[in-house]
Amino acid sequence: MSDSKLKQKFADPSRGVYFIGTTPPKSSVSMAQVSDIGDKLLERLGKIDFDGLIVYDIQDESSRIDKPRPFPFMNTHDPRDYSAILREKSGRPVITYKSVSQRSREEFDEWLDRAWCPHGVRDLVLVGSPSSEGEIKLPLSQAYATMKEHSLNFNLGGVTIAERHASKGDEHLRLLEKSAQGCEFFVSQAVYNPQATIDLLSSYARECKERGLTPKRIILTFTPCGSAKTLEFMEWLGISVPQATCHRILDAHNPLGESIRICRNNLDQILEACGGLGIPLGLNIESLTNRKEEIDAAIRLYKLLKATLDLKLAELEL
Amino acid sequence: MSDSKLKQKFADPSRGVYFIGTTPPKSSVSMAQVSDIGDKLLERLGKIDFDGLIVYDIQDESSRIDKPRPFPFMNTHDPRDYSAILREKSGRPVITYKSVSQRSREEFDEWLDRAWCPHGVRDLVLVGSPSSEGEIKLPLSQAYATMKEHSLNFNLGGVTIAERHASKGDEHLRLLEKSAQGCEFFVSQAVYNPQATIDLLSSYARECKERGLTPKRIILTFTPCGSAKTLEFMEWLGISVPQATCHRILDAHNPLGESIRICRNNLDQILEACGGLGIPLGLNIESLTNRKEEIDAAIRLYKLLKATLDLKLAELEL
Repeated sequence: MSDSKLKQKFADPSRGVYFIGTTPPKSSVSMAQVSDIGDKLLERLGKIDFDGLIVYDIQDESSRIDKPRPFPFMNTHDPRDYSAILREKSGRPVITYKSVSQRSREEFDEWLDRAWCPHGVRDLVLVGSPSSEGEIKLPLSQAYATMKEHSLNFNLGGVTIAERHASKGDEHLRLLEKSAQGCEFFVSQAVYNPQATIDLLSSYARECKERGLTPKRIILTFTPCGSAKTLEFMEWLGISVPQATCHRILDAHNPLGESIRICRNNLDQILEACGGLGIPLGLNIESLTNRKEEIDAAIRLYKLLKATLDLKLAELEL
Repeated sequence: MSDSKLKQKFADPSRGVYFIGTTPPKSSVSMAQVSDIGDKLLERLGKIDFDGLIVYDIQDESSRIDKPRPFPFMNTHDPRDYSAILREKSGRPVITYKSVSQRSREEFDEWLDRAWCPHGVRDLVLVGSPSSEGEIKLPLSQAYATMKEHSLNFNLGGVTIAERHASKGDEHLRLLEKSAQGCEFFVSQAVYNPQATIDLLSSYARECKERGLTPKRIILTFTPCGSAKTLEFMEWLGISVPQATCHRILDAHNPLGESIRICRNNLDQILEACGGLGIPLGLNIESLTNRKEEIDAAIRLYKLLKATLDLKLAELEL
């Protein structure tokens, strides 16, 4: 199998790139069921054009926060497996997440080798420990170093969290550091606070300009939110939701529809402020729950935001 | 080879369909050169997502009008040939135009058979005589009748001319008549007079509702115009360009850019008036000349208008 097909798309700043984010099924279901779940997902995506899928690696993040997780944590299938199934069935690239902290370097090495072949993973996002507490067998920086020693030509990405920028003001420097460690693109946490994302993108663009570097592609994640429980879950995940936005969603006659309008307005604001900064952007739309109405809303949101970004990019070319 | 792949896409009213229109190379060039021209075109289209191509059948329309043709008429290669080459190279469907009036029914029959196989044409638009003068060996209505007798399952389309609606007020009835004759979709002449298109679409939607019929898909054609000569050619082709629009293009510092802004505004007006009428729409962007800057402008126009229609359709789903 050849190299990453996404690399070439990512390298063209005149185009947006568009993904659907999803999580592997819980580990208690059989591989036959995993395959069925993949079929069902792709059937739902049948009417939309997308560049690829993103498969997360869900960790038990309870060490990060004292509050109970609104949806109970469950171990999932290895993201490599689900990623391979989705790539095979859809014929499209799949960006695969991998949490590195719980296993040793040797185990990570082996995971990487098998991810490349037979699993066919080419686009990989490494995720560090959710908190500095608990045992970290392999820190993220060492995982990046391991990647550099590998001859496998992964298209490597990192996560970026605008909320960290809002609190510490240095997330743009982390992007540069991760780029030096090999990251070619970044995927954000779900955006509900556009100002934090705008500040991050603006700082990143300035810093790149100062250092004479080309900004990497940043894929912004958006997700619909249709209930108080999903909202609680977002907050548990560390997604910053301004108070007024919470009120708008909770008080709406149709919370899901209201969250779509909010996401669209948030993207509009980000594009207004950052569309001309020269940072190539992308979108990743995920549904945080498996509720049918939230998945359908994610597809509506996807179409709306993709057209919004495509239109902005076309306008910038005039 | 299987049936038309476009049929299924056309049948889903929630999605737009997007085409690039082009003409076959002149008949004096060799097939090797035709192949090179196809490569060059597809290379230019490499960065955009499109559902297919449209290959026109250029007629000598001098019987229709007294004025000399601004760009001299030249015979071209058979649209079947160029269509097969483009389909093969791009892996995408190609809608092939065919002028029927100059040849006998037997010749048309034979053309159809070979178009189906080996040429692989599945999506076909028949075009009648440009004027009622001159010998018509096969009227359009008889060509449609011939199609019905064929067992070949073409996805048949027709042309529609909003300018005819502006002058005669009955183009919506022609759409219904052509549908009864087998047309499953329509492609418009280039739009520069949005009101004529709005009136046509509005009349068509009302008539369909009254008769309890589902409106067919209508693919609107847009083209950039970067010079007085192209503008003159558009007028020669019968495209209605309001006076103020001519002035805007001719007086602009950058006529090509101005024509793109005009086209976008025209599509906005059409979608504002007709987006909610239940007529599934599509876009076809063509370059009327082979000038590099007009072709590049056509690609910019394509991206802008596709995102505009996609956004409107996504908004309608909210």
